[in-house]
Amino acid sequence: MITSKITLSLVFSCFCMTLFAQKNTSISSPNKQITLKVISVENGNLSYQVSYKNKTIIEPSTLGFVLKRPEIILNKFQLVGVDSSSVDETWKPVWGEVSSIRNNYKQLIVKVKDKSKADNLLNIIFRVFDDGVGFRYDFPQESAIKHFIVKDELTQFNLAGNHKTFWIPGDYDTNEYLYNTTKLSEIDAIKAAKKETDIALQAIIGANTVQTPLMMKTDEGVYINIHEAALLNYPAMNITLDKATFTFTSHLVPDAVGNKAYLQAPFQTPWRTIVVSDKATEILSSKTVLNLNEPSKITDVSWIKPQKFIGMWWEMHVGKSNWFLQGNKHGANTENVKKYIDYAAKHGFDGVLVEGWNEGWEDWFGNWKENVFDFVTPYSDYNIEALTAYAKSKGVRIIMHHETSGSATNYERHFDKAYQFMKDHNMNTVKTGYVGRIIPRGEHHDSQWMVNHYQRVAEKAAEYKIMVEAHEPVHPTGLHRTYPNWLANEAARGNEFNNAPNLGLVPEHETILPFTRLMGGPMDYTPGFFHFQLNQYDASRTTRVKTTLAKQLALYVTMYSPLQMAGDFPENFDKHLDAFQFIKDVPVDWDDTKVLEAEPGDFITTARKQKGKENWFLGAITDENARKTTIKLDFLDENARYEATIYQDAADADWKTNPEAYKIEKKVVTKKDALNLSLAKGGGCAISLIKL
Amino acid sequence: MITSKITLSLVFSCFCMTLFAQKNTSISSPNKQITLKVISVENGNLSYQVSYKNKTIIEPSTLGFVLKRPEIILNKFQLVGVDSSSVDETWKPVWGEVSSIRNNYKQLIVKVKDKSKADNLLNIIFRVFDDGVGFRYDFPQESAIKHFIVKDELTQFNLAGNHKTFWIPGDYDTNEYLYNTTKLSEIDAIKAAKKETDIALQAIIGANTVQTPLMMKTDEGVYINIHEAALLNYPAMNITLDKATFTFTSHLVPDAVGNKAYLQAPFQTPWRTIVVSDKATEILSSKTVLNLNEPSKITDVSWIKPQKFIGMWWEMHVGKSNWFLQGNKHGANTENVKKYIDYAAKHGFDGVLVEGWNEGWEDWFGNWKENVFDFVTPYSDYNIEALTAYAKSKGVRIIMHHETSGSATNYERHFDKAYQFMKDHNMNTVKTGYVGRIIPRGEHHDSQWMVNHYQRVAEKAAEYKIMVEAHEPVHPTGLHRTYPNWLANEAARGNEFNNAPNLGLVPEHETILPFTRLMGGPMDYTPGFFHFQLNQYDASRTTRVKTTLAKQLALYVTMYSPLQMAGDFPENFDKHLDAFQFIKDVPVDWDDTKVLEAEPGDFITTARKQKGKENWFLGAITDENARKTTIKLDFLDENARYEATIYQDAADADWKTNPEAYKIEKKVVTKKDALNLSLAKGGGCAISLIKL
Repeated sequence: MITSKITLSLVFSCFCMTLFAQKNTSISSPNKQITLKVISVENGNLSYQVSYKNKTIIEPSTLGFVLKRPEIILNKFQLVGVDSSSVDETWKPVWGEVSSIRNNYKQLIVKVKDKSKADNLLNIIFRVFDDGVGFRYDFPQESAIKHFIVKDELTQFNLAGNHKTFWIPGDYDTNEYLYNTTKLSEIDAIKAAKKETDIALQAIIGANTVQTPLMMKTDEGVYINIHEAALLNYPAMNITLDKATFTFTSHLVPDAVGNKAYLQAPFQTPWRTIVVSDKATEILSSKTVLNLNEPSKITDVSWIKPQKFIGMWWEMHVGKSNWFLQGNKHGANTENVKKYIDYAAKHGFDGVLVEGWNEGWEDWFGNWKENVFDFVTPYSDYNIEALTAYAKSKGVRIIMHHETSGSATNYERHFDKAYQFMKDHNMNTVKTGYVGRIIPRGEHHDSQWMVNHYQRVAEKAAEYKIMVEAHEPVHPTGLHRTYPNWLANEAARGNEFNNAPNLGLVPEHETILPFTRLMGGPMDYTPGFFHFQLNQYDASRTTRVKTTLAKQLALYVTMYSPLQMAGDFPENFDKHLDAFQFIKDVPVDWDDTKVLEAEPGDFITTARKQKGKENWFLGAITDENARKTTIKLDFLDENARYEATIYQDAADADWKTNPEAYKIEKKVVTKKDALNLSLAKGGGCAISLIKL
Repeated sequence: MITSKITLSLVFSCFCMTLFAQKNTSISSPNKQITLKVISVENGNLSYQVSYKNKTIIEPSTLGFVLKRPEIILNKFQLVGVDSSSVDETWKPVWGEVSSIRNNYKQLIVKVKDKSKADNLLNIIFRVFDDGVGFRYDFPQESAIKHFIVKDELTQFNLAGNHKTFWIPGDYDTNEYLYNTTKLSEIDAIKAAKKETDIALQAIIGANTVQTPLMMKTDEGVYINIHEAALLNYPAMNITLDKATFTFTSHLVPDAVGNKAYLQAPFQTPWRTIVVSDKATEILSSKTVLNLNEPSKITDVSWIKPQKFIGMWWEMHVGKSNWFLQGNKHGANTENVKKYIDYAAKHGFDGVLVEGWNEGWEDWFGNWKENVFDFVTPYSDYNIEALTAYAKSKGVRIIMHHETSGSATNYERHFDKAYQFMKDHNMNTVKTGYVGRIIPRGEHHDSQWMVNHYQRVAEKAAEYKIMVEAHEPVHPTGLHRTYPNWLANEAARGNEFNNAPNLGLVPEHETILPFTRLMGGPMDYTPGFFHFQLNQYDASRTTRVKTTLAKQLALYVTMYSPLQMAGDFPENFDKHLDAFQFIKDVPVDWDDTKVLEAEPGDFITTARKQKGKENWFLGAITDENARKTTIKLDFLDENARYEATIYQDAADADWKTNPEAYKIEKKVVTKKDALNLSLAKGGGCAISLIKL
């Protein structure tokens, strides 16, 4: 509900400058800390500028487009008018980190017309929040531009200095990179991409092109995050750096014939977002990306539920069994899956993901083949009818797996039958996968066609009251507000990369992800690995998990998701049932979240309050360095006592040499207490605080 | 049923030549008139040669492939073996020009391995019929080549002279060209394509590239037709001429990224066909393309019926009404369509095609927009429930129209709902349309993806017992044998081009089509125009129909199709109800067909015997020249009398000056009679011969 919407009368102020007459207009955030200025120069250039606490963080930066049809460059404008307004509303997410979200911003709509053809109209809509700025282009209905093809978007982000930056290479097809931490001037995306031999499919763009969400930190300690919100019917944005000026320019993912987007007015682009704060914790708490998305399009959300699940999955990764039916190692056979169902029921998990259940796995990887899976034909040793009944009798849901092999056309042909098949078998959640080159051939994971595809999946699944999490999709942009059945995505290097033979993961990875990938939405990171040397079933393997066990627990709190997997498999959990208790206890939906301390690349400590309960859960993680910290429990209720169960690294724990060394301590605490936590190298700490 | 299949033991004969050792093997047609020789040269080159009546018509011509993955050139081979066999069987088509078809050929399978990698196996399967040769490549299961991508097919057709040729420009997206008649040496496809301003979307290939079916005539009077059969999971073949040697080389239609085909062994390419005869009539009677297709994949064919229909269609073309709902000219409104249903019922037509019935027409043409039609939402003035009931009460079926706007992805997403919608509304036949650039973007009307799409349409429609005719699809290749519910296609310049403002049609057009486009299968040519100046509803129009009225009638016999439209609309038929009687009488399914005389570009006279009845129908057409001919009725039954109704051009008829001048004569005839027919310029003659 919009609690206030006031149209302000703003006028562009005129300056006399040496070269050009210049008209400016500006607007500030409700708390006055962020100011956005729009600058219109007489030659037609239009730019925006952002300052934070009176320091410029985005220098004047260009706005505009190159269109292919009609063939025009939209970058010389004449001002038509300016509308201002403000909004302060509060809304309740279906699920989330907090139970209610304030959406409070000042809005400025700058209306311009093309200098060379006055019926070509364009509006730029700016929203200034207390912790950031969003802006989008609006092609209005009344413009002469009706159907149009975008060749390039000219949006720039002209940064004020050579910031420290957490980046991954720009790529049309994958976002599963390790993060690089360098100065802007040191970005070399080609070099970084070339060392990434764990990634099967790359489509890198250039040495200076990186992906968003891009996290930066200025020398003065200001944190800046650039991303986009509400990516619908438009390709994903990568950004290309001009190192001479530290200016990033939008680089949209092309389609099969090199065009970027096929559009029809009225159309509004995704929001370009700049989140800024001098506190790293506030970056993680920002709701700006979410606020810039539209409210839920799903009216009845009663069937949408956050979930915890285990899965027939990691045992294939480590070579205990196979996805495909061949010899006697097929993982997803009826008997095995029954054991998983039993385990889920025994330990209170909602679901069991089953990968490799359906025909096609023996012949698809890397083949760019269109018709692999039909999504309804189980392997002969997978008795889906019996398992449906069995799961139901145990109060557990099987989670469907739709690996598409990247063949989105084939998936779309099977949508209806596949989702009906799920309903017929009592399933309400699907994990989709897009491993491999995309079909339609020439399209990319992040091009407009695929962006539309992911939306179609969310919408079609919603018709069947099915929840979705996508693996290998485009980067999330807060669309889980609009499609709350779209619970989570992978779209980054997940915990599974601990099993990758070359670079694998690094201990700092999870301290960066919340500042980057997670700015767009929840990730199915699949924490919960309890076995660290991954040669359990294949003695030749040298891969290993690069955290301590306690850190695996802490990730359930530091990496927010409404859909959390316990990644390892039962026999490994059984070796550490005392630690497993935390995974059983930790909720997946929250009434409140406090990011207590954070520094990208170094550490994060987060506390969250269980949805509808008085209990809190805390996770603390560190990078490759050991860390001691004292956490004040002042977020707890007054006059209440909590039983704290502290799962922490043992004194001699070390991700490399002794990851399974942990200790579990219980004590009663109140809000006046503070806890001294000692995190090992690559370690973490997880705490449940149950109100007594 | 295969009546004989004998494996012959053939051996390659060895010649000592100046440069290379050469191994040859040859096989002749059952009637010995055609001989195929396969020549294997020691350096690895493999070629084939075809002679007809002891004269070489195809000089030694190369075979092979360039693959992109694995990256190999397959054109140097070592012979592994040769299998020979022969087949003589007779089969009954579900519908057709004749009630039973003899499939009689000698087969030679040449098994080779790649000289540079012996596990790369390839077979070439040759079939030699009495009137032609078919050959295809077979990538066997046991080859090392499993998944592979075709970059180029190296098949050549090395012609023995500078033949007279009936050709249209090679094009990835359209086959709606006028035919050019030149010597091979005079082919200039770019020049020809450039004058074709009536065609909205062209993707021409090069000056020397033309489409198949390609019709040629040698100086000695031998007719040669090159085409392909059973085009499935492969792009269409265009052919590029080397004018120095009169050699055509296969040019496959590329996909969005420039590849030609994505394949997996075992795989057999479409057949490359060469039909040859010194009688033009035998070219038209050839069943070789059909015989090279697989038998029906549809078991229950009881629901598949040839049909005649009228349609809410031409009145939009001539500007009487509109496809879209705007103002008061929307054609497909309930009241108008009821009138068409009444008319169909009154005159015994099976169906009424209704175009412009569904939302989307106001905004798609030329916009390359993905989501235009949903195929289930009628315009507000089209009461489909009422019309369904009304049509049913009158014993008429509405024929569905699915214009896809070229957006095949969108159509595929709606397949099931669209076909169920048809069944719910008592429809069993759909006209599909692919006007505009294809989506998936970068694909072409004739690329592998779309070839697969057309097949998917046929298969999916068959699931719903729906018959299909496609407009703007790839050229047909006899697949109506395999999918008898795929009744017809457009895939050429149809009668509608009489309304095109520039080149339009020419009187010779229909004398060429049966030798070219129709070699692949029936065409929905939409004959039956009874009004010739097309300014009836728009005085400014200069377009006109370029035949006489009698010729429009004759086309129902000379242009075979199981699906025939009476193209004009009721008010124009009503002006010539006596002539309209022929369209009412003429069948769309036949027990027998006699092509009595024919010369491509000049004239065709065909007689057909009604399916299950003793009546015959005869059509004779000429080009721009008037023509007198005497037709012996010796195809009629012995000792039988027939009432002949002769619809012919009046003495002063002329397509240009007096097209509506016709006379209708009745007389009793027997097989001993001959009829002297007098065809006007651009004229024709239609005769019904009803057994008394």
